[in-house]
Amino acid sequence: MHRGASPGRKELRVDTAVEAVGLIAGALTTSAFVPQAWKTWRTRSAGDFSLALLVLLVVGNTLWLGYGVMKGSTGLVVANLVTVPLTAAILCVKLRRG
Amino acid sequence: MHRGASPGRKELRVDTAVEAVGLIAGALTTSAFVPQAWKTWRTRSAGDFSLALLVLLVVGNTLWLGYGVMKGSTGLVVANLVTVPLTAAILCVKLRRG
Repeated sequence: MHRGASPGRKELRVDTAVEAVGLIAGALTTSAFVPQAWKTWRTRSAGDFSLALLVLLVVGNTLWLGYGVMKGSTGLVVANLVTVPLTAAILCVKLRRG
Repeated sequence: MHRGASPGRKELRVDTAVEAVGLIAGALTTSAFVPQAWKTWRTRSAGDFSLALLVLLVVGNTLWLGYGVMKGSTGLVVANLVTVPLTAAILCVKLRRG
C-alpha cells in the first residue's frame, strides 16, 4: 500500500471526512422535521400520517434523548431536543384532527 | 458514595441498561416507518407530508447508512437499510400524487 509523506495526517483527514458525513446526516434527519411541523401546524391536517409512526417517533426519540444524556452525547441530546417537540406537535394535530 | 459487594457487576448492569435504552430507541424509530409506508402505499396519499421532510429523510438516512458502513456499525446499517427504502417509497407516492 502506497503511503504519502504524512500517513498520520492522511488517516486523520479520512477520519474527519467520515465524521463529517455523520454530522451532515444528523443535521439533515433532524432538520427534516422543521418544515414538516410547520406545514402540519399551519394546515392542521395530519390525516396522511400513521398514528403509529408519530407515537413510535415521539417515544423512540424521547428514549434517544435519555440515552444521549446517559452517554453524555451532545449530538444526540441536541438532535432529540429538536425532534421530540416537533414530532409531538404533529402528533397533537393528528390526535385532535385525525 | 455507597458501594455494594460487587461494584463491577453493578456498573456492568447499569451499562447494559443504558445500552438497552439505545437499542429500544433504535428499534422504535426504525420500525416507526413500517406502518407509515404501508398506509401511504395503500392509500396512495401523501398530501399532508412536506416534500422537504421526505427528501431530507431519504438523503439523511442514506448518509447515515454510508456512515454506518464506514464505521462498521451493524446497528446503523441495519436501521438505515430499513428506513431508506421505506422513506423512498413514501417520497415516490408524494412525487406522483402530491
